[in-house]
Amino acid sequence: MRKLKCEIICVGTELLLGDIVNTNSQYISEKLSEIGIDVYYHTSVGDNFERILGSLKNSFENKDINLIITSGGLGPTDDDLTKEVCSAYFNLDLLLNEDCLDDLRKIVGEEGLNKGNLKQVYIPEGCVPIKNHKGTAPGVIFDFDDKIIINLPGPPCELYTMFEEYVVPYLKNYTDKVFYSEFLRLSGIPESNLNEILKDLFSSVNPSLAPYAKDNDLVLRLTSNGISEEECIELIKPLKDKVYNKVSKFIYSEGTAPIEERLVKELTRLNYKISTVESCTGGMVSSTIVNFPGASKVFNEGFITYSNESKVENILCNMDTINKFGAVSKETSKEMVEGLYKKTKSEVCISITGVAGPFFSENKPVGLVYIGIKIKDNIYIREYNFNGDRYRIRNRTTFIALLETYKLLKHIK
Amino acid sequence: MRKLKCEIICVGTELLLGDIVNTNSQYISEKLSEIGIDVYYHTSVGDNFERILGSLKNSFENKDINLIITSGGLGPTDDDLTKEVCSAYFNLDLLLNEDCLDDLRKIVGEEGLNKGNLKQVYIPEGCVPIKNHKGTAPGVIFDFDDKIIINLPGPPCELYTMFEEYVVPYLKNYTDKVFYSEFLRLSGIPESNLNEILKDLFSSVNPSLAPYAKDNDLVLRLTSNGISEEECIELIKPLKDKVYNKVSKFIYSEGTAPIEERLVKELTRLNYKISTVESCTGGMVSSTIVNFPGASKVFNEGFITYSNESKVENILCNMDTINKFGAVSKETSKEMVEGLYKKTKSEVCISITGVAGPFFSENKPVGLVYIGIKIKDNIYIREYNFNGDRYRIRNRTTFIALLETYKLLKHIK
Repeated sequence: MRKLKCEIICVGTELLLGDIVNTNSQYISEKLSEIGIDVYYHTSVGDNFERILGSLKNSFENKDINLIITSGGLGPTDDDLTKEVCSAYFNLDLLLNEDCLDDLRKIVGEEGLNKGNLKQVYIPEGCVPIKNHKGTAPGVIFDFDDKIIINLPGPPCELYTMFEEYVVPYLKNYTDKVFYSEFLRLSGIPESNLNEILKDLFSSVNPSLAPYAKDNDLVLRLTSNGISEEECIELIKPLKDKVYNKVSKFIYSEGTAPIEERLVKELTRLNYKISTVESCTGGMVSSTIVNFPGASKVFNEGFITYSNESKVENILCNMDTINKFGAVSKETSKEMVEGLYKKTKSEVCISITGVAGPFFSENKPVGLVYIGIKIKDNIYIREYNFNGDRYRIRNRTTFIALLETYKLLKHIK
Repeated sequence: MRKLKCEIICVGTELLLGDIVNTNSQYISEKLSEIGIDVYYHTSVGDNFERILGSLKNSFENKDINLIITSGGLGPTDDDLTKEVCSAYFNLDLLLNEDCLDDLRKIVGEEGLNKGNLKQVYIPEGCVPIKNHKGTAPGVIFDFDDKIIINLPGPPCELYTMFEEYVVPYLKNYTDKVFYSEFLRLSGIPESNLNEILKDLFSSVNPSLAPYAKDNDLVLRLTSNGISEEECIELIKPLKDKVYNKVSKFIYSEGTAPIEERLVKELTRLNYKISTVESCTGGMVSSTIVNFPGASKVFNEGFITYSNESKVENILCNMDTINKFGAVSKETSKEMVEGLYKKTKSEVCISITGVAGPFFSENKPVGLVYIGIKIKDNIYIREYNFNGDRYRIRNRTTFIALLETYKLLKHIK
C-alpha cells in the first residue's frame, strides 16, 4: 500500500489579501492526522490559472507529494478555476453530469439554472463527483497515475460535511493503520525548561512525543500507530511513564478538555457551586466558565465590581481596607473573596483584582494581579506579575484563576 | 524602484498537524495590502531543514518572488530552524549579537541564560535584528541580491508588534506610493444582498472597494493609492458617495475601531455610566467593554445572574414574572434592565437573557435571546433568534448588544 503524502492547496485571492483567515487548512490537517495521513505543505494561491497549475506541477513533480486536497475556486464565476486547472493538468474534458444537474435543480429550481451554476455541474471525465448538501458546487476526486487530487469548495460549512462524509472514507482505503494520541497538560514550568528536560524523548518515533501548542496551556501529545487501539495504548505506555518520571509534579491533568470543562466537572463531582467577583478581568472569568454547557448547574452568580463603591456595596468590602491598602492589594483581594462567600454561600469563590494596563493605577505596576480563591473554610490569595498587553494580562489571569481553582478542587475527596 | 512580490512562509509542524489555525498569514497579508505590496502565495512547511530550504529556493528561483516573510521557527529548541536555513541560503555565519544578548538578559536574567535561548541571539552576519518586546526571539531582516527575507517569531502577539513597529516602516522604503484606506461598517443587511447591490462598484481599481471580513462586523474597505494622502482621499470620495447613495441606511459607522471602543467613546462623550446584567453571555458583554482601556471611567458594575434567585436578589426582578413568563422572556428582560437601573443609577443599562444551548431551556428554542437596553427613561427590548453553537450565540449576542447600544447613544446630542 503506497504511503500518502499530502499538500493542501487553498485557492482564492481573498486569502492573499488577508480578507479571511484560512481555517480550512487547519481543519483538513487535523482530520488527516487523525487517520494517519501526513501533510507536508499548506499553500494558498490566487485565482490565477498559471499559478494554480504551477502549484500542482511543483507539488507532484518537485515535492514528492501524491495527494493534493484543494479548497475554493469551484464557484460559478469565471474567476473560479480550480476544477478547470486540475482537468488541464490531467488532460481531461469536462462533461455535464446528469446526477449533479439534478441536485443543482433541486436547490435552485429550473428557472434558477444559469451559465454560472451550470458550469459547476461539469465533471472531468473519469472522475468521481462529491455531493454537496449545503451548496451548489460539487467536489471532484481525480485519481490517476498514483496521483490524487480532491477538489472541495471554499465555504467551511460545505467543506466540513463533504470531507467527513466522502473524503475520509475514500482516503481510509489508503491506510491500514490505527492512529492514537494522548495528551498531558502541564503548568508551573517554562516551555524552554520542559523542552530541555524532555529533549531525549522528543526523538522517539512510534510512539512520538511532541509539544502541542495551545493558547495558555502547555500540552504534550503522545502519538502511536499500530493495528489496533489496544496496541497503540501499549506502545504509548512506556513513553508516558518516562514523561511522568521526569515531570510528574508539573502534570495537572490529561486529555483535551479545556480548563473550564475540567473545573465545571470537578464542581459537579463535588456538588459545589461557584461564584466570582472580578475587577480587571471584567467578567472574563465568569464568561469562560459559562462557555462550558454544564456550567449552568454549578455557576451561581458573578459580580463585576469595577468601582470601589461597587466592591463595598455588593461584596461587603470595607472602604477603609481599600483606602489603606488599595483596591489592588492582598488585603482587598481577601475581603472580596470573603465578602463574596458570605453573600452567595457558594462553596467556591474566586476574586480578581489587578492592573491590566496600559495605565498604572494606585502606583501599582501593570500586570500586578491578586487572585483570591476560597473553598469552604480555606482561603488562598496569590500575587502574580503578568507580562504583555491588556488583553493578554486579563486572559492569563483568567486561565490561572481557573487552573488554580481546578487544582485545589481535584485534591478534595 | 523594484516592485515587491511577496510570499509568506509559516514554519511549524504544528500547523501541518492542524493543532493551530494560521492567523499570521492573514494578518501579514492584510497589513501588506494596506501598503500596496502584493502577496502571491502563502506556504506552510514543517520544522524540516531541507523542506524549508526547498521552499525558499522555489520561491526565489521558480515563482518570481523577491520578498519572503517567515513566521515561526525562531525558538530555543533544535527544531527551530528558520533563521539557520535562511542563513544557509545566503551562505552567512551566525554571530552573537551583544544588543540582542542584553535584551535577552533583561527578560530572563543572568541565571536564566541557557544554550537554548542564547541560540536566539545569534544573528546572521550583515543582517538587521528586529527587537521583540514581548518575547525572547528577535526577528531578522536579510536583504541581499534583490532578495529580502524577514524572519518573525510565531506567537501572534510578538509578531504583530514587531511587524507594525519595524517591518512596515522598512518595507515602505520600497514603495513610492501612498496607500490609503477608509472603512465603512454596516449592519442590518445580509452580506450576499450587500454584494449584489454593490456588484458594479467592486470592479473599480483605484479607488477599489472590497468587503473586509471581520468576526461579527460587515465592513467595506475603500482603498486608493497616489502621491499623497490628500490625493488618495480625493480619489476615494466619489466612490464613497456612490456607496452611501446605495446603502447609507445600513452604514452605522466609519473607521477601524472595534465596537467596544466606539461604545466607550460615546459614553465618555455623554458622561454616562454603563452597567450590565447578563445571563447566557455570563460576563462576555462586560468583559468586552472592559477590554477597551478607557472603560474604567464609564463602566460602573456588572452582574451575572445565572440563577433565577440571583436575578431576584441582585437585580430586584420579581419571581412571579420569572415563573409566569420564564427567565428567557421579554417581561423578565424588561424587569432585569429596570432593576439594574434602579440599583446602579447608571444612565445606560444592558440586560441579556437567552438560551445559548446546546440544551433547550423552559421549552424555549436554542438561540432565542432578549437584549434589553435602557438609556435614561427609554427602554428598548429586542428579541433575536441566533444560529450556531453556544459560543457563536453568546458572541453574536454580545456584539449586537454593544452595537445597538452604540447606535442609540450616537443619536443623543
